[in-house]
Amino acid sequence: MYMTQNVDHFGFDNTQTYQQRYLVSNQFWNDDGGPIFFYTGNEGDIAWFCNNTGFMWDTAPEFKALLVFAEHRYYGESLPYGKDSYANNTMLNYLTAEQAMADFAELIKFIKQTVPGAAKSQVITMGGSYGGMLSAWMRLKYPNLVLGSLAASAPIWQFEGLAPCGSFYEVVQRTFQTGSQQCVDNIAYSWGAMTSLWPGDLQFLGETFKLCKPIEDKYALSDLLDWLVEVLGNIAMVDYPYPASFLEPLPAWPAKEFCKHLSEPLKDKALIAAVAEGVKMYFNYTGQASCINMSEEATGNLGDQGWGYQACTEMVMPMCSNNTNMFYNIDWDFSSYAATCKYEHGVMPRENWISLNYWGKDIKAASNIIFSNGLLDPWSGGGVLESLSPSLVAIQIPSGAHHLDLRGKNPGDPADVIAARQQEKNIMKNWLYGPGR
Amino acid sequence: MYMTQNVDHFGFDNTQTYQQRYLVSNQFWNDDGGPIFFYTGNEGDIAWFCNNTGFMWDTAPEFKALLVFAEHRYYGESLPYGKDSYANNTMLNYLTAEQAMADFAELIKFIKQTVPGAAKSQVITMGGSYGGMLSAWMRLKYPNLVLGSLAASAPIWQFEGLAPCGSFYEVVQRTFQTGSQQCVDNIAYSWGAMTSLWPGDLQFLGETFKLCKPIEDKYALSDLLDWLVEVLGNIAMVDYPYPASFLEPLPAWPAKEFCKHLSEPLKDKALIAAVAEGVKMYFNYTGQASCINMSEEATGNLGDQGWGYQACTEMVMPMCSNNTNMFYNIDWDFSSYAATCKYEHGVMPRENWISLNYWGKDIKAASNIIFSNGLLDPWSGGGVLESLSPSLVAIQIPSGAHHLDLRGKNPGDPADVIAARQQEKNIMKNWLYGPGR
Repeated sequence: MYMTQNVDHFGFDNTQTYQQRYLVSNQFWNDDGGPIFFYTGNEGDIAWFCNNTGFMWDTAPEFKALLVFAEHRYYGESLPYGKDSYANNTMLNYLTAEQAMADFAELIKFIKQTVPGAAKSQVITMGGSYGGMLSAWMRLKYPNLVLGSLAASAPIWQFEGLAPCGSFYEVVQRTFQTGSQQCVDNIAYSWGAMTSLWPGDLQFLGETFKLCKPIEDKYALSDLLDWLVEVLGNIAMVDYPYPASFLEPLPAWPAKEFCKHLSEPLKDKALIAAVAEGVKMYFNYTGQASCINMSEEATGNLGDQGWGYQACTEMVMPMCSNNTNMFYNIDWDFSSYAATCKYEHGVMPRENWISLNYWGKDIKAASNIIFSNGLLDPWSGGGVLESLSPSLVAIQIPSGAHHLDLRGKNPGDPADVIAARQQEKNIMKNWLYGPGR
Repeated sequence: MYMTQNVDHFGFDNTQTYQQRYLVSNQFWNDDGGPIFFYTGNEGDIAWFCNNTGFMWDTAPEFKALLVFAEHRYYGESLPYGKDSYANNTMLNYLTAEQAMADFAELIKFIKQTVPGAAKSQVITMGGSYGGMLSAWMRLKYPNLVLGSLAASAPIWQFEGLAPCGSFYEVVQRTFQTGSQQCVDNIAYSWGAMTSLWPGDLQFLGETFKLCKPIEDKYALSDLLDWLVEVLGNIAMVDYPYPASFLEPLPAWPAKEFCKHLSEPLKDKALIAAVAEGVKMYFNYTGQASCINMSEEATGNLGDQGWGYQACTEMVMPMCSNNTNMFYNIDWDFSSYAATCKYEHGVMPRENWISLNYWGKDIKAASNIIFSNGLLDPWSGGGVLESLSPSLVAIQIPSGAHHLDLRGKNPGDPADVIAARQQEKNIMKNWLYGPGR
């Protein structure tokens, strides 16, 4: 379905509107009082999120819930200026979390007004990752519309001053340690092995990693290392217990799979070749790719261009790593980050706005939010891992990666994610029907 | 003092900044833990609000509080584009409550970072009228920054669907009834008396009301009636128990004073002349005016131009009156209201945004707000008159007009406003120091 939305909710000079897409299923809904499960879309095509959020489909029958999946503006089909939405920063000016949340608020109201029976339905927002942040923030900013929120793998504290910048990479390392310590040690040595190929032997890298474009200078070498860091982070994010295709089609436990190639002490070119085998597992598990394109890190369903802009405006998430872990030294320096944003996107990020606007660490005035985090997920380091009050409940899923709990049930589900989903349902019932129901 | 603020907090294309003015007094402050009383400025010069908010000055010594008075953007000296701020709707685009509140949020953070000792100080927002709404909304939207809020005479429900549109004029009538029922009856008859002068005898009106410009046609006659309605509303608003100069310099109990001229049954020109005497009391109590300018309704310290824009964008406050009270029939019709806004300001108002964004009637998720209302004040009809929870406390002041409780103490204060101020202080102590302290 499509809803007409104001392009600018926060000013009156721009009177343009656009069509926001949303998906609805009333298959399981009791239109006489059943709740609305409202997915707060994140940085990608909503159909893809809809298909990767089986928890809502699995749970809807029990709650007799209406399912709504709302697309985030500037992604998928919800383009304020159509094909020109990314043409320049004037067009992009309305790509913010605040505008997206105002869309969601208007959409909730619209659904309650237009869907027969929905007027009296309670709304629970759900989302994962950035969508999980939006889900939680909706409860903070619009509790008149939202009874409660399931914020899965939502790193609401991955912002300046709220969490250590090193937590992300520390968790990546921890996740690869589930493969073996040897694997982690090999990764730690691999950076030096690769850089030592400069200047004479760079073509080995392009060939070994089967890159579509060769590595020809030290800048490309540096890009390769940065890209590998991201790939390792992504593998940790999707370290699911069964074969899945979220960011890429992958086998069960891909971090362990990656580490199978790195279980013995290796060095130099043998070490690089073993790392490359792991990377090819990530990018080419199905054997379809003829070469690996370094400009891609994950599924095309995610809107990298839009997220690049958001990361350079509001979503400034400090990341760093020091030599004590398996990565090379990665400094967090806001000034150079901002300079890169200015150069690449023509915008200056605002380092502290998210902390200020979404209450930073001081969210105790809120209520009815579940913060679930898989401990294999690098984003968990910026998440809420301890309950803050009886109604701000943290759920840790030790064998879960990035919002595993939002995925559909699977025979390969570990006991802890099954328990987490049950706890989430119990809490939601408590919101909807009161204690003990 | 001045703080550099972003002109646009909600977008990144406009990188301009402006200087927001704020006033600070540390005269009574204990910089080792004393709280901050933060006045959320409304539609006018902040120095004028500062001088009319004696409650903060009277209370600061007891709390050892730092006083901050923050000017609202587009008013006083806080002009985003200097003299051009009102030049067109592109310049005016950043005049919204959301932008003003983001200014306040940034200012609170700035003060905590820059004033030695302030980092650990709790912040209580205070404000009256629109400033009272902003004060309450700051607690809704930024409870990380604001411990609690005193929202005096804040008509947060004077918006579509939240309160009956007739309440304002009903309270005006009730306030004039404190003069006499005869006074109210006379006012009710005066509209007919005035309109019956058309078409032959309009010059009588200009002369009798001592208007600077004569009434020459039926449009001007209609304007006169509308203006008189506003004047009566203003007199009720400032029906203070002692001589005061808020909107205009006035004697004690100006509604009763107005009614002194209308205590006998009157009709036709004698009735009109008596009404005119009351109006002259309002505009020319000090005897300084040679004629009355109908384009002015109150003090020049209020930014009528800015408020006109705000009323035609976000601040859509339905008002109506039917024949059962002392006013003539005034319909509320959003379409014609919007058409007038389009014609006069070139903008289309959004009828429901405030209800959606500031939680409408459903504010029970909030806490730590005092809603005080004087029952003589026409705006009380759109206010919160009953407590909604132990921490959302309504205080009614039967003999109070518009935010009388925020004014400085006065020998003429009735017992109920003295009690209200004491209750407000007790509640704030409870927020700051816990129960029973």
